[in-house]
Amino acid sequence: MLNFASDYLEGAHPNILEALIKSNFVSCPGYGDDVYCKSAKEKIKKAIGRDDVDVWFLVGGTQTNRIVINSALAIYEGVISADTGHINTHECGAIEHSGHKVISLSQSEGKLAANTVRDYLETFYADQNHEASVFPGMVYISHPTELGTLYTKAELTELSKVCHEYNLPLFLDGARLGYGLVSPASDLTLREISELVDVFYIGGTKVGALCGEAVVFTKGNTPKHFYSTIKQNGALLAKGRLLGVQFDTLFTNDLYFEISKNAIRQAQRLISIFEQKGYPFFLKTDTNQQFVILENEKMKTLSGEVVFSYWEKYDENHTVVRFCTSWATTDAQMDALEQIL
Amino acid sequence: MLNFASDYLEGAHPNILEALIKSNFVSCPGYGDDVYCKSAKEKIKKAIGRDDVDVWFLVGGTQTNRIVINSALAIYEGVISADTGHINTHECGAIEHSGHKVISLSQSEGKLAANTVRDYLETFYADQNHEASVFPGMVYISHPTELGTLYTKAELTELSKVCHEYNLPLFLDGARLGYGLVSPASDLTLREISELVDVFYIGGTKVGALCGEAVVFTKGNTPKHFYSTIKQNGALLAKGRLLGVQFDTLFTNDLYFEISKNAIRQAQRLISIFEQKGYPFFLKTDTNQQFVILENEKMKTLSGEVVFSYWEKYDENHTVVRFCTSWATTDAQMDALEQIL
Amino acid sequence: MLNFASDYLEGAHPNILEALIKSNFVSCPGYGDDVYCKSAKEKIKKAIGRDDVDVWFLVGGTQTNRIVINSALAIYEGVISADTGHINTHECGAIEHSGHKVISLSQSEGKLAANTVRDYLETFYADQNHEASVFPGMVYISHPTELGTLYTKAELTELSKVCHEYNLPLFLDGARLGYGLVSPASDLTLREISELVDVFYIGGTKVGALCGEAVVFTKGNTPKHFYSTIKQNGALLAKGRLLGVQFDTLFTNDLYFEISKNAIRQAQRLISIFEQKGYPFFLKTDTNQQFVILENEKMKTLSGEVVFSYWEKYDENHTVVRFCTSWATTDAQMDALEQIL
Amino acid sequence: MLNFASDYLEGAHPNILEALIKSNFVSCPGYGDDVYCKSAKEKIKKAIGRDDVDVWFLVGGTQTNRIVINSALAIYEGVISADTGHINTHECGAIEHSGHKVISLSQSEGKLAANTVRDYLETFYADQNHEASVFPGMVYISHPTELGTLYTKAELTELSKVCHEYNLPLFLDGARLGYGLVSPASDLTLREISELVDVFYIGGTKVGALCGEAVVFTKGNTPKHFYSTIKQNGALLAKGRLLGVQFDTLFTNDLYFEISKNAIRQAQRLISIFEQKGYPFFLKTDTNQQFVILENEKMKTLSGEVVFSYWEKYDENHTVVRFCTSWATTDAQMDALEQIL
Repeated sequence: MLNFASDYLEGAHPNILEALIKSNFVSCPGYGDDVYCKSAKEKIKKAIGRDDVDVWFLVGGTQTNRIVINSALAIYEGVISADTGHINTHECGAIEHSGHKVISLSQSEGKLAANTVRDYLETFYADQNHEASVFPGMVYISHPTELGTLYTKAELTELSKVCHEYNLPLFLDGARLGYGLVSPASDLTLREISELVDVFYIGGTKVGALCGEAVVFTKGNTPKHFYSTIKQNGALLAKGRLLGVQFDTLFTNDLYFEISKNAIRQAQRLISIFEQKGYPFFLKTDTNQQFVILENEKMKTLSGEVVFSYWEKYDENHTVVRFCTSWATTDAQMDALEQIL
Repeated sequence: MLNFASDYLEGAHPNILEALIKSNFVSCPGYGDDVYCKSAKEKIKKAIGRDDVDVWFLVGGTQTNRIVINSALAIYEGVISADTGHINTHECGAIEHSGHKVISLSQSEGKLAANTVRDYLETFYADQNHEASVFPGMVYISHPTELGTLYTKAELTELSKVCHEYNLPLFLDGARLGYGLVSPASDLTLREISELVDVFYIGGTKVGALCGEAVVFTKGNTPKHFYSTIKQNGALLAKGRLLGVQFDTLFTNDLYFEISKNAIRQAQRLISIFEQKGYPFFLKTDTNQQFVILENEKMKTLSGEVVFSYWEKYDENHTVVRFCTSWATTDAQMDALEQIL
Repeated sequence: MLNFASDYLEGAHPNILEALIKSNFVSCPGYGDDVYCKSAKEKIKKAIGRDDVDVWFLVGGTQTNRIVINSALAIYEGVISADTGHINTHECGAIEHSGHKVISLSQSEGKLAANTVRDYLETFYADQNHEASVFPGMVYISHPTELGTLYTKAELTELSKVCHEYNLPLFLDGARLGYGLVSPASDLTLREISELVDVFYIGGTKVGALCGEAVVFTKGNTPKHFYSTIKQNGALLAKGRLLGVQFDTLFTNDLYFEISKNAIRQAQRLISIFEQKGYPFFLKTDTNQQFVILENEKMKTLSGEVVFSYWEKYDENHTVVRFCTSWATTDAQMDALEQIL
Repeated sequence: MLNFASDYLEGAHPNILEALIKSNFVSCPGYGDDVYCKSAKEKIKKAIGRDDVDVWFLVGGTQTNRIVINSALAIYEGVISADTGHINTHECGAIEHSGHKVISLSQSEGKLAANTVRDYLETFYADQNHEASVFPGMVYISHPTELGTLYTKAELTELSKVCHEYNLPLFLDGARLGYGLVSPASDLTLREISELVDVFYIGGTKVGALCGEAVVFTKGNTPKHFYSTIKQNGALLAKGRLLGVQFDTLFTNDLYFEISKNAIRQAQRLISIFEQKGYPFFLKTDTNQQFVILENEKMKTLSGEVVFSYWEKYDENHTVVRFCTSWATTDAQMDALEQIL
């Protein structure tokens, strides 16, 4: 069965498995204090082009969002997010479970506009009674967004500006960052991102790793005793090497970027296949997620041969579905999809 | 200075102070296990007309919302509320601080429609991926709402029906319940409310008490060890008698209802004063809160003589402000307002 | 029935009720922003003899402990307490419910020794693996303790010293502070306490008020947005005046201290009555709580005429019980007790 | 450098890495809904000898403890643990961070005696004031304990009995379960454990996996919506296959038990080496952790050639240190240790 349901359908890039085998019997201290983590951190800093950032490895995206946000906020603060933000929709209330409101604002194609944030903040502080409300304490965005769209450099710069005017750290969820960075439509480098945001992460799980997200604090702003906070949240791997080895491999010879390009290339082909077949798009993006409108009947028959994701109801007779490509998508799979359609 | 800023500007109804004096040196066990609490509970049951409800006394509204909701929800659940709901706007994130998302839905004049809730629930359960979202675990409404509006019996019945179809307890925040019950526009009795909702409270703080809210569980559904949960939240008064004496007084000779009527009578007069003077209304209600649109210049001069609440910006030159009457509002105050205007 | 079960058996000192009546119809802003709170704060500062402290009013002891501790601790920190500390035993886990471990250390007659704290801290930081443990973030003591005992000035100074060496704020729970301050055995003034600890509270509930605790931050260390934190915890009274009026009264003409003296005088008489009758003591204290050992038979018969508190099992045939005096204990009650015994 | 610091020094058993490679490009649904997880669950049920248990995979031990305990407890409940219990000492307060007190009781060599629990529960419920305390809601034990000791069948049966008399679920932390099951000193089978406890886990991280713990609910008592709770805690792997493949391998051809035996065999040799060299033991155990008393001078020189764990100060001149063997310990390493000593 052909599968375009997500970008985490396969295991890991073969180089990673090889590196796991090669390093397997090297005896290492636990909890991230191993040579592989150290090497991976250095390589990531080099990829960013800055030596003054602080890199940490966590296991998954929801975990990372929860811990980073929980560490940044005071008890009376919440986090601003697009209403489509992953933390607001698909994390089972992880942020609220850790005590903080997600202050959801309207967005356009998954992107939070600087003006939306500014308007919110101005209105908030203009309200004489604002001390009875949740204080905004951070701004969270995803890049690429949950809808596969990308912030432009101008947009991210504006957002960064308003955040810093109000002393709010800007947190960028980069679960799919690789796909954003190598998209031909992107005008943002890793270094620029590191300069515009206060903390972000480089997603491994969706870009070739078995698991793992590399969190980067960019302003000397690592939360105090972050190690203990990670442990407290049950997120500290005893064998931290598992993350170190993976990111060390991904950031050797630009592997992370190279495999990201495959997803983009296949996504572009996917668009043209659907276009040729005359399918309407709900949203065509510059990254690895594409949103197609299917007649419900067609959706039913198609789902006998291809796996894709239900996104939302379009109207009585149509449904929006999502097709994902990834680092692992092959030409053969695209050929097969073309034939089926 | 004339003050219409809120309905908690004065102390308590004199009968309450008298009762406090009279009972002052009676030696009582602590934590609500006193004769006054017992008597008050009996009187409240009588006012409801049911003997099978369970009454508890808490100190304030935010506290009550937080504890009732926290006791009702499983860790993976959130509470549905109108986006204007007090828990969603003016409680500093108390619900989220206790671990739960406020799932805010759109409303009309502060009221959550049964259809809005039903649509949300249908969409939620239709989403194959709903286990990655916060489960709805309760529905919260205010009556009167934060905008002074009232649910009709038909509306509350519909809402109750959809909640119970989905096994969701319906929680009614009655911080201003007295003002709702005695409003000529209301077609709901206390007993009917008790039958349509699963838990509600009878507000004391805003209706003649120094403090205190009487929580009523209506379906044999008092949370297990609710006493300990109250204590854990720092909400258990050592001298529980303070609440018992007050509610015992409020529910003696229908005092609660009688003093509520004063607020409604004065609110009606307030409306006609503003109407006569030609002020436009943002919202005219059947209870004790009225929302007037003032020119910003006028607002400035008026605020030199009368205190009222800023509500929201109307347009560049106008502001919505709120005037409240209460159990304590006097004819003399209304006369003075008339003169000033 | 004679009642020595606790120090919160009666309502409030009559002066307080009088003041409530007198102030009742003065129209005040809510949430503590009223003239009575302001006046009370000034009088408390004067009683302390310092103008550079910050005073806040909360409703009860558990609430105060929970909010002060929660505001002071980072997420990875816990609070050190004597194992007999109220927060460790009789607050339904309020501290843990708000996310923090109570690190309980051994004590002597309810008192935490400076050396015990120092040993703990030295061992903690000597452990190479301490980052996997809860960091100590505050030290909590009660004065008088839960066992009615008092820290000497030397003891409190030592404790303060070790706390500050380790940068730990010292928090003093003064739910019964009045009884400690006026005890002839005490060598500590209110001012000295304010200088030795970082935050403490002056208990109202157990010393003549209907409810209320006055929290004092002594080092310019009021937690940021403390108002919102109080609100978030459901602890902000809409009619904050209720607390303001009470503390204003208690700190007018030294009322707080005068009524405290009554409890001590009656406690001394209580000791001599029990001694004369030949009852053995579990603990005789310098404050208002006395712990007597009763034969179980005797306990049974006595409990038909006097109410007291079960404390703990002494042996198969004996039980430790607690007798409390208070601001409200009368000579007539003591006479009656004498006769009964 | 020779390393006996822990049992998580190497990567994974080679069979696991092989299985990861073999399965790598099989396209699977995420979040544990893959064929490897399903197969692994079946094999674990078979190893237990019961079809009526429910198996879930989590990533690490602290995470598992936190989620299982948080799912089992009501908000007013805490979890009983030996004071040496991992949740009480080395998890950064993860349990308290999720809202619950760890009720620590005294132990002997890391084991919690049934009588200790019974005494605690009897005293708790005998206290008339127990509603002001944290209710015990679960009992947590480790097997092997943090000190490498083992419960006998008789001991676990007694403990199980007292728990069930009081309706308390018994939770067994089996982070090192393999080493306990194959110890010649053990008289407990996996099936018996499953019958005596309500939930337990089979540790993977310390027994040959890169990461992973298999949680087993034994009484049809899986918490409702456990999937969502896992997600909420940031513990749900997108690529759940990583855990499935590993446990599927560990439970193929008894690999889990076979590799556990190696640790025990090497631990026995380790004991005899130290004994032959005349080193005193702090605790000699039947599992893979051994506690030796070293003169501080000796400790210093030894630590230049061998890595071991600091445990605690013994006296001014001696220190207790821990040596661990594991599934990966080789004869060559033992020979080297012998030579060094």
